[in-house]
Amino acid sequence: MNNTIETILNHRSIRSFTDQLLTADEIDILVKSAQAASTSSYVQAYSIIGVSDPEKKRELSVLAGNQPYVENNGHFFVFCADLHRHQKLAEEKGVNISELLENTEMFMVGLIDAALAAQNMSIAAESMGLGICYIGGIRNELDKVTEVLQTPDHVLPLFGLAVGHPANLSGKKPRLPKQAVYHENTYNGNADDFRETMNAYDQTISDYYRERTNGKREETWSEQILNFMKQKPRTYLNDYVKEKGFNKN
Amino acid sequence: MNNTIETILNHRSIRSFTDQLLTADEIDILVKSAQAASTSSYVQAYSIIGVSDPEKKRELSVLAGNQPYVENNGHFFVFCADLHRHQKLAEEKGVNISELLENTEMFMVGLIDAALAAQNMSIAAESMGLGICYIGGIRNELDKVTEVLQTPDHVLPLFGLAVGHPANLSGKKPRLPKQAVYHENTYNGNADDFRETMNAYDQTISDYYRERTNGKREETWSEQILNFMKQKPRTYLNDYVKEKGFNKN
Repeated sequence: MNNTIETILNHRSIRSFTDQLLTADEIDILVKSAQAASTSSYVQAYSIIGVSDPEKKRELSVLAGNQPYVENNGHFFVFCADLHRHQKLAEEKGVNISELLENTEMFMVGLIDAALAAQNMSIAAESMGLGICYIGGIRNELDKVTEVLQTPDHVLPLFGLAVGHPANLSGKKPRLPKQAVYHENTYNGNADDFRETMNAYDQTISDYYRERTNGKREETWSEQILNFMKQKPRTYLNDYVKEKGFNKN
Repeated sequence: MNNTIETILNHRSIRSFTDQLLTADEIDILVKSAQAASTSSYVQAYSIIGVSDPEKKRELSVLAGNQPYVENNGHFFVFCADLHRHQKLAEEKGVNISELLENTEMFMVGLIDAALAAQNMSIAAESMGLGICYIGGIRNELDKVTEVLQTPDHVLPLFGLAVGHPANLSGKKPRLPKQAVYHENTYNGNADDFRETMNAYDQTISDYYRERTNGKREETWSEQILNFMKQKPRTYLNDYVKEKGFNKN
């Protein structure tokens, strides 16, 4: 196993950072790494906003559901789907491509491009001994996030990435068994296989929590998922992304 | 610069592979690497379908727009957004979570989770000396792709990933200048900065093609993007993803 794969397999989200800020050189190599990711048809349909202003970090931290590691970290990045550049190029040429830019396909392209770039940055950071945590919580109140970051139409903040020097190492949470995620040639929708896999995984997760909390937690993955699904959903997003020029047709 | 960052920065899409197939161990480590990626609220909302059946690879290659490297590679993976497991868990408990599963937020979660996993697999593959190419072309005709792969509702194939031993190294395409993609604290929407950056980048790309093709190609990035935007858009996707249970509300 090479170093890179060791880094990848050793991933755990870090939610507690020292107050050491990233250097300009570190930020530079992280952004370069992000940019090196594949991009659909070379469109590079994303942007990254690096947030260092303490006031903005505090605001984002509150908006993301009072997560302190959004404020306290080495640097905070926000990844956005971005078709603003493409819109501007078209405008300059007097071409109207709004209908195309605003369709579901381009929404998907923006999300996928941004996520590929973010994961490159994450692996690069972890290879440098830094820790990372994705922050989906910025989708709680995107109207306010777009105000803080002053993003124009055709730019949609998707998630944050907190990066920094780890203060505490968290545990590595067990993933679904391979056979639940990896299918050969066709999707295996067999109900018995599903139940068997879920039983085994639920046991693994329950054991994992019990061990790490001296028996205080012992919920299964199934229980967690069903609880998660009962949370307040971000139902405003359907309208919101359309307002910003995405996913309209 | 460490090995991992070297691997990341050295990425180029490979579109020509030898006929050497990946071994079961290689596939296993690639899937493990994919699974180690971050996942939104631990939902793991994706699946990977590994395609080795030559007939299926041929079919997918045609559906993806006759791209020969979809058929000829070491292994072909299809990454899907997958909320089928969550739907099944809810059904077993007699809980109705369809409205939640089918909203735009969960569509975004599925896309982001799948893309993070795919990029982990890509970096792992490249660190092993393998080449990769993302195949967005499978979104040309998703109705037929879902037939080939027999994916149920709440599973949406997003893109393919061709992996294999490179037969030819392609060039490393220059990315947008950092200042076009990376913003500090707020989004820089300044029109003069945009034009200046685009002029420089268009020159870079034009030079890149001219050098590599002995002057036969010399188009700029702006020209490529505007041509791309004139292509037949995948307008059916808006309805199609809804039919499959995504992005409905």
